[in-house]
Amino acid sequence: MIQVAIMGHGVVGSGVASIILTHKKKLFANLGEEIYIKKVLDLREFPDSPIADRFTKDFNDILNDAEIRVVAEVMGGINPAYEYTKELLKAGKSVVTSNKELVAAKGAELIQIAKSNNANFFFEASVGGGIPILRPLVQCLVANNVKEIAGILNGTTNFILSKMIDEGMDFDAALKLAQDLGFAERNPEADVEGHDACRKICILASLAYGKHIYPDNIHTEGITNISLKDVAYAAKYNSVIKLIGDVKLLDNGKIDIYVSPMFVREKSLLANIHDEFNGIMVRGDCTDDVLFYGKGAGSLPTASAVVADIIDACRHLKERKYIFWADSNNESVLPYNESRTRMYLRIENPDSIELVNEVFGDVYTIASDEELAVATDLMTIEEIERNIEKLERKDVKILSKIRISDL
Amino acid sequence: MIQVAIMGHGVVGSGVASIILTHKKKLFANLGEEIYIKKVLDLREFPDSPIADRFTKDFNDILNDAEIRVVAEVMGGINPAYEYTKELLKAGKSVVTSNKELVAAKGAELIQIAKSNNANFFFEASVGGGIPILRPLVQCLVANNVKEIAGILNGTTNFILSKMIDEGMDFDAALKLAQDLGFAERNPEADVEGHDACRKICILASLAYGKHIYPDNIHTEGITNISLKDVAYAAKYNSVIKLIGDVKLLDNGKIDIYVSPMFVREKSLLANIHDEFNGIMVRGDCTDDVLFYGKGAGSLPTASAVVADIIDACRHLKERKYIFWADSNNESVLPYNESRTRMYLRIENPDSIELVNEVFGDVYTIASDEELAVATDLMTIEEIERNIEKLERKDVKILSKIRISDL
Repeated sequence: MIQVAIMGHGVVGSGVASIILTHKKKLFANLGEEIYIKKVLDLREFPDSPIADRFTKDFNDILNDAEIRVVAEVMGGINPAYEYTKELLKAGKSVVTSNKELVAAKGAELIQIAKSNNANFFFEASVGGGIPILRPLVQCLVANNVKEIAGILNGTTNFILSKMIDEGMDFDAALKLAQDLGFAERNPEADVEGHDACRKICILASLAYGKHIYPDNIHTEGITNISLKDVAYAAKYNSVIKLIGDVKLLDNGKIDIYVSPMFVREKSLLANIHDEFNGIMVRGDCTDDVLFYGKGAGSLPTASAVVADIIDACRHLKERKYIFWADSNNESVLPYNESRTRMYLRIENPDSIELVNEVFGDVYTIASDEELAVATDLMTIEEIERNIEKLERKDVKILSKIRISDL
Repeated sequence: MIQVAIMGHGVVGSGVASIILTHKKKLFANLGEEIYIKKVLDLREFPDSPIADRFTKDFNDILNDAEIRVVAEVMGGINPAYEYTKELLKAGKSVVTSNKELVAAKGAELIQIAKSNNANFFFEASVGGGIPILRPLVQCLVANNVKEIAGILNGTTNFILSKMIDEGMDFDAALKLAQDLGFAERNPEADVEGHDACRKICILASLAYGKHIYPDNIHTEGITNISLKDVAYAAKYNSVIKLIGDVKLLDNGKIDIYVSPMFVREKSLLANIHDEFNGIMVRGDCTDDVLFYGKGAGSLPTASAVVADIIDACRHLKERKYIFWADSNNESVLPYNESRTRMYLRIENPDSIELVNEVFGDVYTIASDEELAVATDLMTIEEIERNIEKLERKDVKILSKIRISDL
């Protein structure tokens, strides 16, 4: 019997407890030992829980219990999750977490503390919820140089965009529906502004390239400015708009990483990831494109990934596993201004095409009706911004601009 | 430095050697030790290889070399791969293989021999080529009861069907093209008759359900009888025809497993796996549907999965990993006659709809033009066959029948 604890009994935490209790036989068959939940940390009370007697409000009940070897941190947020995780690892306990905020902000430090204390720190559930992605990336794709990872990493925004694309809802109505269905928080900022996706692409980049990429100064654009007009022009360009977290290793060793809405070709697999689903494409130099798809959130999908981590930690009580990345100062991150892309521009003045061509060099005209929609050639963000300024000085008004992906 | 050997220098084997040589730095960074190819077994000579001096024609040079700890078996076929693998495992060497024929026919025995000799037997590359699927299934999805696995497991047949669907080529022309492009063998039987897909779904089923499912008496239908008329009627039903390997765990504990062309709804993800790509859907009780997509064959994709197995075996020289299934006599496999499905029928006589309805109960009419195309209700294969016989006794001729999937 291996004794574990769960910190947090919210959406994910209650799922973790539920799976350990209901899948006892399956887990026993796999691990060869019973997993016993000794403590659950939560400030609330859950008198109806089948393990109500094991709840505690005192973190020290877990920290100081030598029998507890593995702890699931599913509280979310940085504090006190960070302090707790640090103390547990220092005490030689392994910690598994679904907390992408924590991993993105403190991953390198926590991995190092785990290593120093011969404990493990796993976080499969922090990216893609129930979709296996981190282990496959580290283990199965190890013989590849990862050229690019591009993913639909946030179910809330993908749901909203799907409703805009498929049903012509505007952003506000689609957000409201997502909230009513429980796919979006009351305060949706972390999702719709792209911060959640940014944490996840940073975790993927850190794993793929071996050094911590911090989200702080990564270009992060959300979907709040996407209009139905943009959706319609995208369709004319045989594309759909998706919120993509993207990271590429450039030939000069720099890492081009950002979160941005993007035009994605209709026939590409990422364009066909609908509703609240996630999809993550890994482009290896040997495998070519590999894609992982499934539910990126939700109680049981996410919890099942946490439980898989618990099992893996239980198997490796005496040895460390090989998830590792070094700390960094994001010094290898390409300044966003130097990122190269083609750009969709929606322009208020339909008669400005000559000016636009003059400033941008030849552009592709997607449509010219009440407004003008064009696709520029490949150039840096800096060039694009400079050209836009030039146009605006000539009273050509840019209503929106969206990256065009080559995915 | 860990010394390894490669048995076979064909499409996959030469890829394995090439990756180990060209990705030296990446592999070293991951493993912390150099992987050194000490021997390559092949009856042919490769004087231009950068490791030409390490080729041997004598298996004993590998078996008796105590410094060689891990061997990649990439010869294909059962003999002599089976004997060689057995001897290597008995000598305590770990073996990794891309050989689905070997794993499907002898997996349980080889896993047991590996276990008894504290060695490992890995075979990630045997299913899905470069797509990570076996480790994710065993490790990441461990907290799930797997309800179903359905996959496009053979790139050759998917390429042929894609050409039939997208470009209106007939089977023979599409097969010819596949052969010209190197996607199909000169003797395409193992692919087009479904045997290759059958081996793969058997390996997936064995892993998911913990007992060896042998391919021998599994219902296996290929695509040689699919006509452009079937493709057209499928389109009228908002479906495409895909060759699917499918395994479901039924409530009574029986395993419903088969390989068959199937109608798949156009909007489903499996319908959107095109050309030579593979896609494998795993339906877990916690994760819901998770899909893995990529190139299921080819030198470098497959070889990169073999090299990942080599790395994993090198990490676990002293301990066994937990890939295991027990032997069986396929006693848990549901007789195909008892498998339940809806069935598409193409019928020569367009005026026979009343008779068809009389015999089958109400059917859905897909089309009634020069021929009649219908979809039956859910029933067992036995009932469907009996009804077809009844119709044929009344001179109603069934030209084709294809399972309709609920995927």
